[in-house]
Amino acid sequence: MLSRKVREKLATHETPFYFYDIELLRATLAAVKAESEQYGYRVHYALKANFDPRIVDCIKAYGLGVDCVSGNEIRYAIEKGFSPKGIVFAGVGKSDDEIRYALEQGIFAFNCESAHELEIINELAAEMGKMADVALRINPDVDPMTHRYISTGQADSKFGISYKEIEEVADRLEALKNIRITGLHFHIGSQIREMRVFEYLCLRVNTLYEWFKNRGFHLSHINLGGGLGVDYEQPESEPTPNFKQYFAIFNRHLKIDPALEIHFELGRAIVAQCGELITRVLYNKVTAGGKQVAVVDASMTQLIRPALYQAHHAIENLSGGSDYKTYTIAGTACESSDIFADGIRLPHPRRGDLLSIKTAGAYGASMASRYNMHDLPAAIYSDEL
Amino acid sequence: MLSRKVREKLATHETPFYFYDIELLRATLAAVKAESEQYGYRVHYALKANFDPRIVDCIKAYGLGVDCVSGNEIRYAIEKGFSPKGIVFAGVGKSDDEIRYALEQGIFAFNCESAHELEIINELAAEMGKMADVALRINPDVDPMTHRYISTGQADSKFGISYKEIEEVADRLEALKNIRITGLHFHIGSQIREMRVFEYLCLRVNTLYEWFKNRGFHLSHINLGGGLGVDYEQPESEPTPNFKQYFAIFNRHLKIDPALEIHFELGRAIVAQCGELITRVLYNKVTAGGKQVAVVDASMTQLIRPALYQAHHAIENLSGGSDYKTYTIAGTACESSDIFADGIRLPHPRRGDLLSIKTAGAYGASMASRYNMHDLPAAIYSDEL
Repeated sequence: MLSRKVREKLATHETPFYFYDIELLRATLAAVKAESEQYGYRVHYALKANFDPRIVDCIKAYGLGVDCVSGNEIRYAIEKGFSPKGIVFAGVGKSDDEIRYALEQGIFAFNCESAHELEIINELAAEMGKMADVALRINPDVDPMTHRYISTGQADSKFGISYKEIEEVADRLEALKNIRITGLHFHIGSQIREMRVFEYLCLRVNTLYEWFKNRGFHLSHINLGGGLGVDYEQPESEPTPNFKQYFAIFNRHLKIDPALEIHFELGRAIVAQCGELITRVLYNKVTAGGKQVAVVDASMTQLIRPALYQAHHAIENLSGGSDYKTYTIAGTACESSDIFADGIRLPHPRRGDLLSIKTAGAYGASMASRYNMHDLPAAIYSDEL
Repeated sequence: MLSRKVREKLATHETPFYFYDIELLRATLAAVKAESEQYGYRVHYALKANFDPRIVDCIKAYGLGVDCVSGNEIRYAIEKGFSPKGIVFAGVGKSDDEIRYALEQGIFAFNCESAHELEIINELAAEMGKMADVALRINPDVDPMTHRYISTGQADSKFGISYKEIEEVADRLEALKNIRITGLHFHIGSQIREMRVFEYLCLRVNTLYEWFKNRGFHLSHINLGGGLGVDYEQPESEPTPNFKQYFAIFNRHLKIDPALEIHFELGRAIVAQCGELITRVLYNKVTAGGKQVAVVDASMTQLIRPALYQAHHAIENLSGGSDYKTYTIAGTACESSDIFADGIRLPHPRRGDLLSIKTAGAYGASMASRYNMHDLPAAIYSDEL
């Protein structure tokens, strides 16, 4: 809940915009750092969640590495001052130019998603006279119990090397002289709230790690990906995700040589709660079916998660009121999918009221488009108010 | 099917990019023009479908008006040389600034979506000492028999004034001294392939028109919106939509005073087939479940329709081949939803092969994002090859 003073200041700004609570971001980063460092774990920030320059600067100040999924992301991270040695490069479709660029920069590791990609990285590294440090991304076929669009580690996913082909891949690796397998990488999905999913992951990782060890691989790191979910339903009750419990699960259940570095890739868990999309109510209407609709000045062009994933975001009427009813909050884009919430209870959103669409710091601004020629969303930071 | 010469030229360009067949666009525009003009109908191009500057220039040359859904779109249309008198302004969430700008420019009509919006337009027009020309967008509750995300004219849609409240709205209009009701507007959805839907629409429009006439309204136009679908399954079999049949339906079934102008708003039907997203195959892989996956260098960041609407786009392997099999075509974004086709038959897409994702001229480039920090897609035009 924002203070009255903050709400008054926000009300003077042209809507819509993202409001970032920098203090909350810093508290979240401090928690990630404290909880991961007690086990010596290393955390990479998944840049795709939010590449807002100020957010990224804050994250950098806490010494995290970066998880990049494109050449542009690597370039941006390096421009922002991150060390290439803290950069991992994931993604099923790395282009030749992106691979060459990453090799030139000497990043920590390619998270390699297929046997075919291994061959291409080897070929390009050979041409450049380089060795490529590679973590094999294994698809462990663990069900993350979440939306099918944000699960990535199941049998038919496009991601990773299937557990069925690792034998074959391992055989072929000997011929790839410009590849050095330094680690294994796993990422089973996003927005995971069932913590036992991470236990299952550990059990699979232990088995796969043993297999690679017995095959004579000398690994130096295991990357467990990310996936830790946040509370979209009641964001106020958990402003900072339970990093303590999260890392403790891995500490308890991972059975691998203690000499290995353990890496994580967290995006949503770090930035989701610090961001809110602030929008103003423009119109009220009632449909023939009797739905009470409030049309706001934001749209799916600023926050596409509700349209794309049927994602729920809590919405607060920052202008207050006590006459709670059920409303549909409709965005301004000419698309029926552009509904922020269908049937949400909040105090009557009157024209001019400011609404906050919460938990929008991750996969909000970074997925924005200029559809309907909307301007890209502005950003306002709590420490610059 | 692109000629061998064109395919060879496209192969020299960096992928991914949109390829626009300007000759097909012109043929489509010539057909729209010929078929609409025989009845004296006026057509507005729905700019949201594609605001690529060259595409828009071509459309302007054929004398169409513009259907805008934001202030930025109106500004762009005027910069492109369209007359404000050919511009309609639709959208459920028009901001005060956008309304003021449209009033200043003297556009043809606001398509007004709610009683509340009418009051605000009246208020702003009064402040500026202007009369606002308004078409009431009536939600006629006609089922367009299409995807729920692209239907807009049903009882619980956020769009339009519900048929249940028109009596009340009509009563209130007398007090709105700076509003001139010049027309009625209907738009029931997009990608409509069942032509009888347009017949139903006509029957509803006739009834509603009679009602307004009997209430003493002096209307000068009826706007039937758009919605005409295109063939996503077999684009080659219908490169130009059946405008002849489309306009003939309205000519046959509309029963309104012949003195009234009849307007249409077409977007997809004009630009969908002239555009293709050209992408290159990067990797082949097989999932544990046995799916053959080809990873390409395009993604949902260039074309989000498959992820957002589960939309089908035909895909052709421009590099040829005869070994047809069933493939999953996966995009490069780090999202499980980023699949262009799941189970499509085409000749084995080998690394380096060019694929064309067809019928991508509408709601392709205009919905692009920079998610994953991908570059916005480039455009290549057939007449500049």
